[in-house]
Amino acid sequence: MPDPQTIHDLETPSVLIDLDVMERNIATMQARCDALGLQFRPHIKTHKLPEIAHMQLDAGAVGIACQKVSEAEVFADAGITDIQLPYNIVGEKKTARLAQLAKRARVTVTVDSKATVDGLAKAMQQAGATLNVMVEIVSMERRTGSTTPEDVLELAQHIIAQNNLNFVGVMIYPSIAAVRPRLQAVLKLLADNDIPVQMVSGGGLGSILEADQLPELTELRIGTYVFNDWGSVDKGWANLEDCAMRVRVTVVSANEKDRVILDSGSKTLSSDNRNGLYGYIEEYPQARIHRLNEEHAYTDFSACEGMPQVGDILHIIPAHTCVVTNLHNQIYGVRGETIEKIWPVAARGLVW
Amino acid sequence: MPDPQTIHDLETPSVLIDLDVMERNIATMQARCDALGLQFRPHIKTHKLPEIAHMQLDAGAVGIACQKVSEAEVFADAGITDIQLPYNIVGEKKTARLAQLAKRARVTVTVDSKATVDGLAKAMQQAGATLNVMVEIVSMERRTGSTTPEDVLELAQHIIAQNNLNFVGVMIYPSIAAVRPRLQAVLKLLADNDIPVQMVSGGGLGSILEADQLPELTELRIGTYVFNDWGSVDKGWANLEDCAMRVRVTVVSANEKDRVILDSGSKTLSSDNRNGLYGYIEEYPQARIHRLNEEHAYTDFSACEGMPQVGDILHIIPAHTCVVTNLHNQIYGVRGETIEKIWPVAARGLVW
Repeated sequence: MPDPQTIHDLETPSVLIDLDVMERNIATMQARCDALGLQFRPHIKTHKLPEIAHMQLDAGAVGIACQKVSEAEVFADAGITDIQLPYNIVGEKKTARLAQLAKRARVTVTVDSKATVDGLAKAMQQAGATLNVMVEIVSMERRTGSTTPEDVLELAQHIIAQNNLNFVGVMIYPSIAAVRPRLQAVLKLLADNDIPVQMVSGGGLGSILEADQLPELTELRIGTYVFNDWGSVDKGWANLEDCAMRVRVTVVSANEKDRVILDSGSKTLSSDNRNGLYGYIEEYPQARIHRLNEEHAYTDFSACEGMPQVGDILHIIPAHTCVVTNLHNQIYGVRGETIEKIWPVAARGLVW
Repeated sequence: MPDPQTIHDLETPSVLIDLDVMERNIATMQARCDALGLQFRPHIKTHKLPEIAHMQLDAGAVGIACQKVSEAEVFADAGITDIQLPYNIVGEKKTARLAQLAKRARVTVTVDSKATVDGLAKAMQQAGATLNVMVEIVSMERRTGSTTPEDVLELAQHIIAQNNLNFVGVMIYPSIAAVRPRLQAVLKLLADNDIPVQMVSGGGLGSILEADQLPELTELRIGTYVFNDWGSVDKGWANLEDCAMRVRVTVVSANEKDRVILDSGSKTLSSDNRNGLYGYIEEYPQARIHRLNEEHAYTDFSACEGMPQVGDILHIIPAHTCVVTNLHNQIYGVRGETIEKIWPVAARGLVW
């Protein structure tokens, strides 16, 4: 089958990336970080595509962040040499692979427990590798992270005591302004104990808006900005014109205005939603995608002037872009209606 | 790298299928349908694996149901000759592929609009193919389906008027007892108009419990039963011992009892949940997986006697099994701790 040349050659559902918008997003975020004096480290979980990572690096990023060793391997294979995994890498098989990776790239991970440090130290020693390690500080999200400044200090000292680990700093997610007191308490305690901190790594799309209130940061990790999504817009973190991803879908049933079905269910858009809505339909801004089955989007056009007919093509800005890429074997980079890029999603499905 | 021999050779997160339980589920559902005098047509959306479909057919199933032309092609390539797509197949490129499929397998689709019928008829005529068509009746779910009995009649007549389409019957989902009045009204109207109905196709896991109250049915389409999941158990449709799927995960953070993080987020378990919970942890039945990020499961062990430590391996019965398979490049068939099967998920990611 010949490669599709324009979006009209595509079946649905297909994921389109507006290259003009994406390129602008890449340039704009880099400029915002530059203006703040922050190193920028894009998180590749949003696209999982080495080619886009290289565009981000070419624009000035210092390296990438990713979440899994398997993803990191894909990007190292693509020539990327500065990789951060803001994650507790746990388990002998995984730390052994991480050690191999650390021999061919500058690799930095985060930890929030002695058990994780010990696992990393053992693997690095066995492989003769060296790893950079940050201690994670828990935020109000209460996800991963050391609970108190004293815990952070103890972990930093434990890292420093290992031959094959370099303590490089601290990490927090999301790095909103409200975390400043706990960040300052940690940094003061480390300074009081003569422990140098090279890196204070923040992250999260919303955190760029408050980064000027966190002068302690040295770098930011952000992923979603490259495509943006309906969730970002609804939170006020982006505008509709900043959204680069559209899911091109077909109306497959339209018997009642409040009961229209699109061919884009949870295996296309994922079940992630924003206030109960799974996306924004460009052609019908008032339409509500209010429920998904695996291959069906239940859509209500009651609030719209008209309604689409069976066979109509619509374009959805999804609620959460990062999980959409992960569901598709390939995505399409477009300029206008022309397909410029057919990108296999290189690092998807690598659940390890 | 050598193939993993036991579950201890696997990294996490990994998806395990207990083959003993799966084989029992396949035998039991077939026996239940046999006892009811119903033809059984497993929906392969749950596993997307030709080898499992063949096991279902060997047990007595009449054919398979799947949702997409791309999936149907994978199963036709694997030698399956009776394929139902209970879906409105819309769009010239898709109906053209469907026509090619209809030349090498017995293919049946559903429709709920004249536009869909016209598209199918045109594609079959162009390809010289013949297609079996059912009319879908809307259920209380208000998904796809013709709205009134008169609409069904009109569509049936429209199908009959096409040279390359065979009207074979009606379909409804889910086929719970409460749909009987509307099903009877449709069947009476079709009989009054001398339109023969060979097939009355019902579906949905819960519908097996009420199938004896719907004697009009000739066949059932069910998918989830092959693995079952926490959602099925919570609804009372299955027991824990009927659940064949486990996601093997690692505790990566355990600093506070109500703030434990597992390495299985929405890219592993999907965001589908049951009453706000994303699965059931076999080792800690009282634990609550209450939130997911892409690679993190936020888990609260407050109600448990103990709590796990970093590095512990746990096993999750996911809230919704069908969307989990779809996220993984391969799943593992196990008997006890021995890995008997390494199955690439053949039809995943084929979003078309």
